[in-house]
Amino acid sequence: MIRKTRLFTPGPTPLLPAAQFAMAAADIHHRTAEFRALYERVLGQLKTFVGTKNDVLLLASSGTGAMEAAVSNLTSPGDRVLVLTAGKFGERWEALTKAFGCAVDVVSAPYGETFVAEQVKAALKGETKAVFVQATESSTAVRHDVAGTAKLLKGAGSEALLIVDAITGLGTTKLDVDGWGVDAIIGGSQKAVMIPPGLAYLSLSDRAWKVAETSRNPRYYFDLRKERKNARKGESSYTPAVALIAALGASLDWIAAQGGGDLVAGREALVDNAETCAAMTRAAVEALGLRLFGRGPYAAAATAVLAPEGVDSGVLVKELKSRFGAIVTNGQGEMKGKLFRIAHIGLFDYMDTIGILAALEQVAAANLKLPGFAWGKAVATAQQVYAERTSVAAAELVNA
Amino acid sequence: MIRKTRLFTPGPTPLLPAAQFAMAAADIHHRTAEFRALYERVLGQLKTFVGTKNDVLLLASSGTGAMEAAVSNLTSPGDRVLVLTAGKFGERWEALTKAFGCAVDVVSAPYGETFVAEQVKAALKGETKAVFVQATESSTAVRHDVAGTAKLLKGAGSEALLIVDAITGLGTTKLDVDGWGVDAIIGGSQKAVMIPPGLAYLSLSDRAWKVAETSRNPRYYFDLRKERKNARKGESSYTPAVALIAALGASLDWIAAQGGGDLVAGREALVDNAETCAAMTRAAVEALGLRLFGRGPYAAAATAVLAPEGVDSGVLVKELKSRFGAIVTNGQGEMKGKLFRIAHIGLFDYMDTIGILAALEQVAAANLKLPGFAWGKAVATAQQVYAERTSVAAAELVNA
Repeated sequence: MIRKTRLFTPGPTPLLPAAQFAMAAADIHHRTAEFRALYERVLGQLKTFVGTKNDVLLLASSGTGAMEAAVSNLTSPGDRVLVLTAGKFGERWEALTKAFGCAVDVVSAPYGETFVAEQVKAALKGETKAVFVQATESSTAVRHDVAGTAKLLKGAGSEALLIVDAITGLGTTKLDVDGWGVDAIIGGSQKAVMIPPGLAYLSLSDRAWKVAETSRNPRYYFDLRKERKNARKGESSYTPAVALIAALGASLDWIAAQGGGDLVAGREALVDNAETCAAMTRAAVEALGLRLFGRGPYAAAATAVLAPEGVDSGVLVKELKSRFGAIVTNGQGEMKGKLFRIAHIGLFDYMDTIGILAALEQVAAANLKLPGFAWGKAVATAQQVYAERTSVAAAELVNA
Repeated sequence: MIRKTRLFTPGPTPLLPAAQFAMAAADIHHRTAEFRALYERVLGQLKTFVGTKNDVLLLASSGTGAMEAAVSNLTSPGDRVLVLTAGKFGERWEALTKAFGCAVDVVSAPYGETFVAEQVKAALKGETKAVFVQATESSTAVRHDVAGTAKLLKGAGSEALLIVDAITGLGTTKLDVDGWGVDAIIGGSQKAVMIPPGLAYLSLSDRAWKVAETSRNPRYYFDLRKERKNARKGESSYTPAVALIAALGASLDWIAAQGGGDLVAGREALVDNAETCAAMTRAAVEALGLRLFGRGPYAAAATAVLAPEGVDSGVLVKELKSRFGAIVTNGQGEMKGKLFRIAHIGLFDYMDTIGILAALEQVAAANLKLPGFAWGKAVATAQQVYAERTSVAAAELVNA
């Protein structure tokens, strides 16, 4: 039977057609008025999308590049920093800060969980210069408490910068960057903005910019001072990824259209969409007789599902691909072979979510012996979750 | 929630990405060696796809253009012809043959049914020059018996040409064009070959070509004699729809790839795919408590579903579109408002079919009072049909 290839991965996410067309059409030079107009427009849209009054900068790099920029611009060798980690991307903060010579304290929670405020409070020192965290940990599909962490820092009278990797958090979880006092926030193109990898974006608070002015780290490509200066003239310091920037503009236009022309409402609709897909998936997976990985709080970017005892999750990943063209991801790091992840970040709708769950039911029927298995049970559960969450809209339509 | 727009219509059908890319890249002039190489290749592939040793000709027209070409080239004013009709497209044969001055006998069956051999036998006259029929009637989703009709003509010693509109039949139903003795077969681009509308193709038997030589109808754009002469040189008589031809080539390559590199096997896989989607849909719709339209035999190109008594099917069509972005079609002609049609022709897979059925369940839950409704019942039925039809493949994969 025909098998369309469909990404159900938390980055890269399925591409937005309007962005693909913009990308294909982007045959322009980057030192022209035409590009400057595009760049200024996209940087302005990004501020709204991120939800900050501060400059948002674009980098031709993966998200890790922007994470490095945050470390190299916001710390100096010997600085004491605190990394909050509960997965592969938390570990990346640890590796990055160590690579740049920080004195790194680590609060770690087991994979599948999140750290608790008391641990953070206990680890925070008077001299802690920065706290690094993920908004959502992609490797375990767990949400961390950014608002609570910001509050905790304020409450403790800490002057530490709060540096948030929101690469899978932006567009899947509520973030009040300026309101909470986040000092650096980082996003990536291959996530909720539904374009290919190759762009990262980040924004710094006024406090963070002051630190960036005096950092003693060597930096050139990721020198954010230079980048901001150029961005304010509609320029990038080095050759920008023009086609991806055009795609990003089209994507942000589309997100705004989802909010009736309002990008903030559109971003919230995107978050709500991910929440609905995630709620459908969590309920369905449990109805099927599988267990969610970890205790949560669960991220809406993806759902991590444990393979049954004795089953390599890689086999399920392979079956979904070979039989249904559905690309889901294995666990990362120590969770490889133990779980698989179904994404909800970006361009997924009701039919996509039902589709992957119905494919999972086929794989379960053929490959797993799940007690109480019945055809359609997982899907029916997801259908009901959807119907409950969208009942107002449905009722309106009946009368329309 | 995000609603991707998805066509579930029996033409235009969802576009094949590889064909879209070929279409976008087709920046070539049509009086060049480059185009001639493309054209000859595509015409050759079409012969295999149609399943004939005869020339297949491409026309820059809709399918109706090729239907007109069949009438204008294969009849002469005053010719007695027999039209077999049980729907809107059968009626089009009647209108076309009358427009070209034929003396038209009609065997008609009610919408949702097919004609029976006895009726055809009774209507066939010694002087009948041509019999016109659809392989599948798109307006009612019913399959007509082309093989049986061909056999009947031979058995009756009739010299009438058998002219088959297979616009939705090609790629969804088994057709042995040369073996059965079909004299003209017609296809369209926006159907099983998964490219946009704008191209039609047809093939004539040796007997039909003899008639075309002597037809007294005026014809210029659709003069098939000229078209064949030019096609054999890799040329089209008039400006060809270059981008669509490039797309068609890419599509036929893709279909061949579905058959492991063999276009005949690929075409059969396409038919089988439509049959599986159709079987899933028919079983699911009945499990949901809706009734299929008509008595069949059911076409695999689409499934026609009756709206419940007192419900305008147009409301269901609108709900599926506004709530889920799913485009299904209303009934045509006298069936408008009474039924809706879900397509299986072309690029539909398991997840697509499950998706539209799960959307239909949501609409049923919100808008219809179906006795015995239970969430997931329709989907579960479709899942089981799929599992049964693909059980061998699944078992193999378990051991792989």
